[in-house]
Parts: sequence; structure tokens; C-alpha cells
Amino acid sequence: MSNSYGKLFRITTFGESHGAAVGVIIDGCPAGLDISLEEIQHALDRRRPGQSSITTPRKEEDKATILSGIFEGKTLGTPITLVVNNKDQASHDYSHIEHAFRPSHADYTYTAKYGLRDYRGGGRSSARETVARVAAGVLAAKLLQKYGISIKSYVAQVGSIKLEKPYTQLDLNQIDSNIVRCPDSETAARMISLIEEVRDNLDTVGGVVSCVITGTPAGLGEPVFDKLHAELGKAMLSINAVKGFEYGSGFEGVKMRGSEHNDQFFTDENGAIKTRTNNSGGIQGGISNGQDIYFNVAFKSVATILQPQQTINDAGEEIMLVGKGRHDPCVLPRAVPIVDAMAALVLADFVMRQQASKV
Amino acid sequence: MSNSYGKLFRITTFGESHGAAVGVIIDGCPAGLDISLEEIQHALDRRRPGQSSITTPRKEEDKATILSGIFEGKTLGTPITLVVNNKDQASHDYSHIEHAFRPSHADYTYTAKYGLRDYRGGGRSSARETVARVAAGVLAAKLLQKYGISIKSYVAQVGSIKLEKPYTQLDLNQIDSNIVRCPDSETAARMISLIEEVRDNLDTVGGVVSCVITGTPAGLGEPVFDKLHAELGKAMLSINAVKGFEYGSGFEGVKMRGSEHNDQFFTDENGAIKTRTNNSGGIQGGISNGQDIYFNVAFKSVATILQPQQTINDAGEEIMLVGKGRHDPCVLPRAVPIVDAMAALVLADFVMRQQASKV
Amino acid sequence: MSNSYGKLFRITTFGESHGAAVGVIIDGCPAGLDISLEEIQHALDRRRPGQSSITTPRKEEDKATILSGIFEGKTLGTPITLVVNNKDQASHDYSHIEHAFRPSHADYTYTAKYGLRDYRGGGRSSARETVARVAAGVLAAKLLQKYGISIKSYVAQVGSIKLEKPYTQLDLNQIDSNIVRCPDSETAARMISLIEEVRDNLDTVGGVVSCVITGTPAGLGEPVFDKLHAELGKAMLSINAVKGFEYGSGFEGVKMRGSEHNDQFFTDENGAIKTRTNNSGGIQGGISNGQDIYFNVAFKSVATILQPQQTINDAGEEIMLVGKGRHDPCVLPRAVPIVDAMAALVLADFVMRQQASKV
Amino acid sequence: MSNSYGKLFRITTFGESHGAAVGVIIDGCPAGLDISLEEIQHALDRRRPGQSSITTPRKEEDKATILSGIFEGKTLGTPITLVVNNKDQASHDYSHIEHAFRPSHADYTYTAKYGLRDYRGGGRSSARETVARVAAGVLAAKLLQKYGISIKSYVAQVGSIKLEKPYTQLDLNQIDSNIVRCPDSETAARMISLIEEVRDNLDTVGGVVSCVITGTPAGLGEPVFDKLHAELGKAMLSINAVKGFEYGSGFEGVKMRGSEHNDQFFTDENGAIKTRTNNSGGIQGGISNGQDIYFNVAFKSVATILQPQQTINDAGEEIMLVGKGRHDPCVLPRAVPIVDAMAALVLADFVMRQQASKV
Repeated sequence: MSNSYGKLFRITTFGESHGAAVGVIIDGCPAGLDISLEEIQHALDRRRPGQSSITTPRKEEDKATILSGIFEGKTLGTPITLVVNNKDQASHDYSHIEHAFRPSHADYTYTAKYGLRDYRGGGRSSARETVARVAAGVLAAKLLQKYGISIKSYVAQVGSIKLEKPYTQLDLNQIDSNIVRCPDSETAARMISLIEEVRDNLDTVGGVVSCVITGTPAGLGEPVFDKLHAELGKAMLSINAVKGFEYGSGFEGVKMRGSEHNDQFFTDENGAIKTRTNNSGGIQGGISNGQDIYFNVAFKSVATILQPQQTINDAGEEIMLVGKGRHDPCVLPRAVPIVDAMAALVLADFVMRQQASKV
Repeated sequence: MSNSYGKLFRITTFGESHGAAVGVIIDGCPAGLDISLEEIQHALDRRRPGQSSITTPRKEEDKATILSGIFEGKTLGTPITLVVNNKDQASHDYSHIEHAFRPSHADYTYTAKYGLRDYRGGGRSSARETVARVAAGVLAAKLLQKYGISIKSYVAQVGSIKLEKPYTQLDLNQIDSNIVRCPDSETAARMISLIEEVRDNLDTVGGVVSCVITGTPAGLGEPVFDKLHAELGKAMLSINAVKGFEYGSGFEGVKMRGSEHNDQFFTDENGAIKTRTNNSGGIQGGISNGQDIYFNVAFKSVATILQPQQTINDAGEEIMLVGKGRHDPCVLPRAVPIVDAMAALVLADFVMRQQASKV
Repeated sequence: MSNSYGKLFRITTFGESHGAAVGVIIDGCPAGLDISLEEIQHALDRRRPGQSSITTPRKEEDKATILSGIFEGKTLGTPITLVVNNKDQASHDYSHIEHAFRPSHADYTYTAKYGLRDYRGGGRSSARETVARVAAGVLAAKLLQKYGISIKSYVAQVGSIKLEKPYTQLDLNQIDSNIVRCPDSETAARMISLIEEVRDNLDTVGGVVSCVITGTPAGLGEPVFDKLHAELGKAMLSINAVKGFEYGSGFEGVKMRGSEHNDQFFTDENGAIKTRTNNSGGIQGGISNGQDIYFNVAFKSVATILQPQQTINDAGEEIMLVGKGRHDPCVLPRAVPIVDAMAALVLADFVMRQQASKV
Repeated sequence: MSNSYGKLFRITTFGESHGAAVGVIIDGCPAGLDISLEEIQHALDRRRPGQSSITTPRKEEDKATILSGIFEGKTLGTPITLVVNNKDQASHDYSHIEHAFRPSHADYTYTAKYGLRDYRGGGRSSARETVARVAAGVLAAKLLQKYGISIKSYVAQVGSIKLEKPYTQLDLNQIDSNIVRCPDSETAARMISLIEEVRDNLDTVGGVVSCVITGTPAGLGEPVFDKLHAELGKAMLSINAVKGFEYGSGFEGVKMRGSEHNDQFFTDENGAIKTRTNNSGGIQGGISNGQDIYFNVAFKSVATILQPQQTINDAGEEIMLVGKGRHDPCVLPRAVPIVDAMAALVLADFVMRQQASKV
């Protein structure tokens, strides 16, 4: 049951990285939404390997197939199943890691938990699983469109290079204008250089994705455990390599006094209720207040490095291990559509939960 | 359904801050655990108002009553209901906030969501709800004891005063040796001074609680959405005033290269599998690896301040509002047992989920 | 988690029959519904012991208290907690069953499952738990009223005495016109005589409750597992002493040919879509079709009889046991409000699920 | 979310009858179970069309493919995805029902609920969905094997022809010895004749499947809502065409006095606790008592008949409709493996829930 997310707009993902396929069932998507395979493919293309010089050069086309739930271009209200077949699953040699526990991977913990594992490329623990999330996110975003809700994520930090401007000073239409997906071209250039340097050193580096959600009506989110930011936090922390989540004023904001931090309400010229500042990040008491929602997600550096590392095998013996194959020096650019997708899934679920309570 | 947490060890809390009572049903607690009312009361006393000079001086005894599920000192396997009656619910005057939307409180969002609210002292959005969590956490901790799992939280930051030592250099038995619950006496003294200063300025301040979980076996946590740290994150973010969560290397760790960040495995002299560093925070691929689990939780400053603030009322008119009554200048000391409780609830649930898969 | 029912309109019940109290949390009830304690009490009075000469003469007032979720006569959208204290919990002597496994009671199975039990009066397995269901059902019925949905249950069989008329030939406003709650006065009189005879023989007898739901719009129910009739079935089978459930043509209908059983559609003079027969019981493919929903629920005879019976104790030794106290010779009259309540809870949940999918 | 069943051993099915495929994800199946595609195929073959002269002559091979969760012949603990492609989906002409609401089918209710439907062969409402259940049931049965639990279903009634012997007088190894799956050869012959007669009259007929579960330990099932028989009831009622469920003494048993109905406990020569009669059907208070569990499931006659019927179209106009194609005159023989599968899924879930509570 842990492979499902959402209460009403509910996805269940499946697939090992080198099994036959990865995919998703979306159960609960409302009927009558227009959807095309092209829209799904467009999102997958933002995530796929080999899309630029700073991602892994692996060539995977990640073509989605619809198995159910969509008929004549519309959602049926029945479970929507999307599948992406894995390529060349037999062609690689994974024997060097069959018995090894790679440092900071999930090889050891899966073995400890299940007693066995599909060792090929990480199996279920591989970030390849996020293909399914991105595909499902397209349907969630479709539903949110009906409510005027829009989600934009971008790379805000790579290693120590940080985009210092707040999102309000950025043009979020420029996110895809460069390969690192940072909407500030100057910072983007420095990030790209850093990733290239790290890659050339056979190393990897982490960073931060920021996400901004606009158009949310007041009233989304559910007290007390399923607070809007608590679900966003869980959804983000469930993405591979994520180590932290903060929204609104976040960790820095703890230094502020209440008198500085409080967001004063006012009524604008159109009679809309707004706040003069937005340290709350658009959420108060776990419920959206109609202001922009924004949050940060911390990604650690990729664990697979092309340098020799000391570790142990499943007999407990110390061994040396060198990463093989082609890997990302930095997952941040490819993480952007995953954050978009998970945010969309969270919001879609809350939109439906809010609808449910209408009498 | 959003007032429940946990899949197998499942709690449902209820109660408005000035209604008849707050309480909790624990559904799924295994039968046969020894439990006394005194143990529950001990935990509630760590959370209760009026416990020290730096918490709110409100006098609330917060005495728990057992309504079901415990018989002759043992859990029955049936739902355990714990209730704490609210005191003096009629005695205060809340008419000044009946129509006001207090800044950075949930007055506006509850009204937007539900169309009405219990305005007395925040109603359901009040942190008084955490009484129920702390009571339930005692049962969860009881279950964890059987597995040798121990949880210790402490105040690691108040405003800009930060405990710079990592937890490995602290004596976690000293947490309750001072009223701010920081195990380093020198830092604790500075934190207490800051809180007193802030209080005397009729203001409030935020901070960070750190939590360390020891004794966890490898194998707890469920891929892919219910990762151990994703559930910890959700649980922490569901606590009032929390703005961020990070585990292991956290936000700072994103700057590290993979070659620095990776935790190398080794086998110790007893044949136990360990890692030389613990940037993973005891969790890899969402599953515990047997090392210590540690994480940080950011709390914003309390929204109720005893200074005049500009805001609006429910007619959209601008008004001035001054906080009344007795409030905490800093929630951090009282947040410690809440973090303890939520961590225990997360772990108890995962222990049961792990048991479920045993054949 | 097994003490909860419903996905969106979700109740969790608690309480042992001789513990401090029984009660319920309703999580998910929409905000703004008008509700009074009198309405809740009215439903509880239909269920309470001692209400007539053919129920148990135990005097229990079953007075409900509201602990949360209702403010100034309206639901808040927060969890609603209703509690009924148990009377005289200490005053009776249950030592004769402390170690005995009563025939066809749950003493043995609870002990096998949990390793211990609250033996006083059945503890959690007692039908006293249905107090909580009936109280919660009042809120569910309130929600259904907004949609024009009405539920009427009645006693259709006691022992071999069967009400042969279909519900369409009955005046369902006459259900409470007699103490057995059968809307046909002639049959009611015969049922009452039978129950009195059985009671005087220190024995018990079973029967059937029929339920009719009118006013349901087409479209309620969720394929494929949560079919409307599947949830009704589960809800009914979860009531103490229930042994069977059938809807529409039921068990008898299996003899019919398809050409007889099929319900032909037609459009009435107002343009409404109807069926000429209703063997479907108002449900097709698990979804309501707008016709009346009707079903039968079989209740076995009460297990507690005032005659000596052979059984064993928890040491496995054979013993003789005689029921003590005052018990119902037939639960059917008191089961009627329980069936009403569970049907209301099922429908309320589906109404909310249907709302959730509206875009 | 309504396309999922089970809390811990959880399946989610997908697929329209004439879409690309039908299939299932099993989330929560324990790791390390041995499983082969042949075992899955064997179960599907008991359900597939065209298997005998009294089922539909449609030729569908229903070959299963494994997409995930099984590696080198063992379950991984990750989601298991099984898919069966639909054949010839484009080859048939369904235009005659595109706008028609077939009597006692779900055409009208799906349209009312979703606003559109996949009209080809019933779409999601088709019993073809049960392919997925049968496939998943094989994994559940594998888990039950480890606990010595065995499930045997058979056809106990076709139309008015009823197998009068109780299961204790039958040889349940003879179920597959004839094409109607009734273990009594004489009754089977009469059932087959009836089905042939009905078929030749272009009509259909219903019946009853009985199921017997042996080897269940005492203690399975969860009070109060998720009683073992309540979940069995829901699971059975969720199967297409099912109209009723009863267990143990069932509907007939309501006539019995308590003194007749009660099952007296005794200790057998091996010290095992047993009951002298089994009117309880192996379940007391919703929890298994270690005796055989047995229940009956009523199936109505198939709605598709090859005779002209009056109905309406989606414009509300009256039309005449004649069934086309090749259909089952009686689903009972093919329903047997579906009942087996659903019973296995219920039991597997409860086995895991029971494990979860072990400390």
C-alpha cells in the first residue's frame, strides 16, 4: 500500500528500473477531462535521460502507452493506466553489484527489509520510478487547470551556487530557457559550469528546487494531520535523494520575531482578502489562504560516482567498488518536472477533498 | 479523515481548544502492553502550560482520563480513548476575535474553508490539539520499547542562538535539566535569556527542535511514497507552527560532493553492518539502515503577540487588534514532547507494517 | 483501524460494554449542518434497552454528550465526538464468565486473538458498541436530508413469521406504531406473541430487517470494489448477530431467467428514466439508478440464553453455564435503528465521494 | 480509490473490456514467495471463456504477463503487476449499443455517474475485470499456503436445482471433475442439462456458489467494522452479478432458537478447542474460531440475452434491443475461481493484519 499516494486522486506506481516496465494507475481522476498522449509525453521528455549535456547521456525514449481509463481523448472516471517499457533490460551487466552494497544507495536496506532485491540498476529504489509520477502528474495538472491553479518549479541552488532573488523577482516563463532550469540566465550559466566541472571530476553535486503555486483558492488543505504543507512535504520527501523541505519563511524564518513574521491581512481594491507579506507561504493552519504557495526542496548529490569507493558485500566483506555506466552528475534539472508532478498530485487531491465537503 | 494519522497504529484526535474536551482514539495498538495513567500524565506534564517561567503562565492541569481500551493495566487491542477536559471554557471573553482574522492565525482560512468557525482561542486550529498527540505518543513509545527503539528531542535553536554541537557530542539525558530543554547548559542559559527578553518586549520567537532516534533495526520504512523520512516529515510538518523539516545532512548537505556525502559501509568487530559517516541520517531509500536517525524541525514564532496589529474583520474592514491573555513567547520548550510523540507514532506504525510482512 | 467505517464521512467507534463509556468520532462531516442533542437522543431512544415489554428490561438511559465538533448548533467541519457513559459499570458480578467461553459469543475468539479480554458483559464485542453507530447515523441522515434521501427499516421476519407483502404494499410511516417495528399490524401482533413465547421459554429467536432507501439520485456508488451494495453489505454484516445480506431479487432471484429478471427502462411522463420492474434493487453495476434501493438483513438469535449450556473455560475444561441478568429475547426491534444508521453512513459516504468527482 | 481492495495485501485493478488490457497491481505482497507464470495461468484458465460447452464460446486465451515485482521466480516485496491484453478489440461492432441503455446492465448508471462511458462490451463494468482478481488471487493463495489455509468453492445451485448436501458430505476434490464445477456428479448432470436448455432458449439463469475455507487459525478478522464475514461479504458482493451473501446458518438460521443455534465448545482428544455444531460458520464476533468457514454467494442470471428487449437510448427514446455475440447462459461455472480468488484476498489481508499486531 506504500506505493500509492493520494486519498481521492490516488496513484499507485510500479516497476523496477530494469524490469519489463514502469508505470502508474491513477484511480479517482474525474471523468471528462481532455487528455492526449502528447501531453503526457511532453512532461516525460522534461524528465528523460539524455536531454542535455549536463544530464546522463543514456538514451531512453520513455514512450508512454495508455492501457486503460482514457477513451476517445477523454478520461472515463475509471482507473487510468500508463506504462513505459524499459529498454535493453537484458543488455547490461550488473554482476559487479549483485552482491555489493553501494554506499548511500538502498541496496543494503532493501536486502535487510525484504531478504532479497532486484540488484539491476537499483531495482525499485531507482529514480526511474519517478517516470510514473511525472506521467500521473499530467492528469493532476489537467484537473488543476479547471480551477486556475498553476505550478512552476525551478532550480534555485546547485552546490553552493544559489539564486539569491526571491521568486517574485523572476520570470518563471524562463525556466526552460536553459538546460539547468534556473530562470535567471546569469545564475544558470554558473550552475551549468559547476555541474560540468563536477562531472569532469567524476563526482556529483546536490542542490535545491523551488516551487511556486499560483491561483490556489483559499480553503484547500485539511487540518490537522493532512495540512496542505504537511502533504506537500511528504510528497517532496518521497522523491529520491530529497533531504529537506521548507515552505514560506522556512528554516531562516525561525529567527524572526512574531511582530516581523506575522502577515497582516488587508482588503484590496477589488475586495479580495490578501496579506501584506507572505511569510506564511500561502498556508495558515494547514489551509491555503489564497496567496502564492512557495517551498524549497533539498536534493543531495547523486550517490553513484565514477570513482572507487570502499564498501562491503552481502557477506560482510570489505570491497572496492567503482560506478559503471552513464549517470547524472546532478539530478536537479531532471528533478524539476518531478517536483511539478508531485505538487500537482497533492493539490489535485485537496481540490477533490474540498469538493467532497460541499453540500 | 484528516484528523487521523497512521495506517496500523492509527490515532484520531478531536477537540476544539475551548470546547468540552480534547482527546484521542488510538486504533490498532497491540494488546497486552502495560500502561498506567501516570505514564500518560508524565508526558502531558512536559507539554502543559505553566510549567516554567518561560512558558505561558496559564494554569491548566491537563488531567487525562481513560474511556476505553485499557483493562486492569493492559491494552486490550481495542480502541484506546484518552480525554482531557478543557477548563474554564466559558470564563473567558473572546468577543474581540469573534469577527476578526488574526494575522498568521487560521481564523481566515478556517472561515474560508468551512463557512464558520469556533473562534474561541483558535478552536480546532489551536495547538491545544497536540495534547491528544502527546497522550497517544506514550502508547507508541511503549510499543517501541519492546523493540529497543528510543527517541530523544531537544531544543537546538532559539531565534539566532544555535546549539553548534552535533548530537553525538551531547548528553541527551540532560534535556530536562533546564527549562528550555537544551542539553547544553551554556547554550540553554542564553536561550532562556533570549526568550525572557522577547517576552518582556511583548513579542515571540521561533527556533528548531532536533530529534535523535536510536536502536532502530535496519528495514523500517516503506518505499516508495511512505519512506521513513517522508512520514517523519509529514508528521512534523503537521505540528502547529512548523515550517521546515530536514534529516541527515539536510539543506546544508546539498553543497557536498557525492564523494564526500556517501556513507561507506563497514562491518564492525561484532559483525554488525555500519557506516563510517552518517550523512544519510540513518535512512537509505526510505528504509532505516540501523544507524541513528536524526532530523531537525523548524518552528516559526508564535503568532499571538501582545502588541497592536493591523488586520481585517470578516466584513473585510481594517481593524486594529491586540492579543489578550497569557501566551507563550516561544513554543520550543513545550514542542519537545510533541516532536517526541509524533516520532514515536511514525515509528510504531512502521514497526507494525514491518511485522505485517513477516511470513 | 478496523474500528472505523467510511472513507470521507468516516466514523471511529470506541468503548467496552462495561468500561467508562462508548462513543464515536465522526471525521469528515461537512460544516454547517444544523444538529441538536435532541435529535441524537431521539435515535438513541429507539435503540435503548428497556423501551418495551419485548426488549431487555435493563434500564439504561443512554444519554449522549457532545465533546467536540458542534458549535452553536452547527457542525464545524471538525471531528464530532459523541459519548454515552456506561452506567453502573462496577455494580454487577461477571466473575462467572471471567474464565468461561460462552457458546456462540466472542469470548473465545477475542482471547485467541488478543491474549486477553474485558470479560465484563462481552467488552468490545457487545452490541452496546452500536450506540455509537446510531448516534453517528443521525449526522449522516442530516446530510442525506439535504439531498432528499430517506431511509426506512423495519422488521420483516421473526423466527418463521414472515411479512409476506413487499415494501411497496406497506405504509412505512407505521413502523413505530408497534413495539416490534413491523409496519403491518396483523403480522406485528403475531411477531410480538412469538417473542413473548420465546422469552417465557428462556430462549431467543432471530429474524430479518428490511430496509428501503428512497430519493437516491442515479450515480451513487463506486465501481469496482466499493459497489453501493457491497458497502451496504459490509456495513450490515458488521452489525452484531448478522448472518446474511441480500438486495433486490436476492437469493430467491437466482432462480429467475434473464428474460424475467431484467429491468426494462422507460421514460416517464416527466422525462424521468425509470425501470418497469426493480429486481436490480435500485443498483446496477454497483451504482444507484434512481429507483428505490431495498435489501434484507438476517439476524441470528441472541446467544445469551437463560438456560444451562455446556461449554469450556479458558483452561479447556468442560463446564455448565447459565446466562445471568436481563437480556433481549429477540434483537430485531432494537436492530431497526442500527440498520437505519449504517445505511445512512454508507449513503453519506457515497454522496461525498460523488461530490468529490465534480469538476 | 474504489478500484482497490485490501488494506495490507492490497490490489488495484484496471482495464475496460475492450481497451488495450486488463490487469492488476498487488501492493503489499510479502517478499520471498515462490511464484511462476504457470500458476497464474492455471487459475486464469479456470475462468476463461470458451473452456466448455456451457460457457460462452468466445475464444480468449487470457495470457498473463508480469510487468514488475517478481524477480528470478520470487516476489520482491515491491508492487506486482500482472497484465492480460485484450484481443481483437477493434474487430467487433458495438455501434448498436453506443447510445442504448441495456436492461439490467450498467450502461445507464455509468452514464449518469460519469457523463460518458466506454460502451464497447460494457467497458469497465464488464466481468472481464475479474481476470485481474483471479490473477491476484493466486498470489494471495500462495501466502495462505504458508499458513495451511485452503479455499474451495463450488456451484451449489443453478436456477432451482440445488445441491442439498452440506459441504461436509461432499468430496471437494471433485469440483473440477465436471464442467459445471459441482462436486456431486448427479446434481452436476442436472445443472448442465438446465444450462443447456436455458442456452437453447436464448435465455440465461442464475445460481449459488458455496465456499469452504479450512485450516484457518483462531484469531483472524478485526472487530468491529472489518469483521471477517463483513469483509468476505463485501468482497463477494463486489463480484459482478452477485445479489446476496450469507455465512454459517445464514438466512435460514434466523428461524432457529438460541438454544438450537448456539455452538457448544469442547476440547478434543488432542486438546484442540472445537465446537459441536458450526452454525457460526467458523466466525464469532467477526473473528475466526478455528472451525471451517463456509458461506454462500447468490448470482443473478446474466443480463445479456439473445432475445429482443424493450429499453431506451440516451436520448430517452424507447427502442428494441437484441443481444449480439456469444455470451454465457450461466456464469456460475466461471464464477467459482473468482469466488476462490476474492476469498483468498480477504484472508491474506487478515493474515497480514494479524501479523502486524504481534509484538
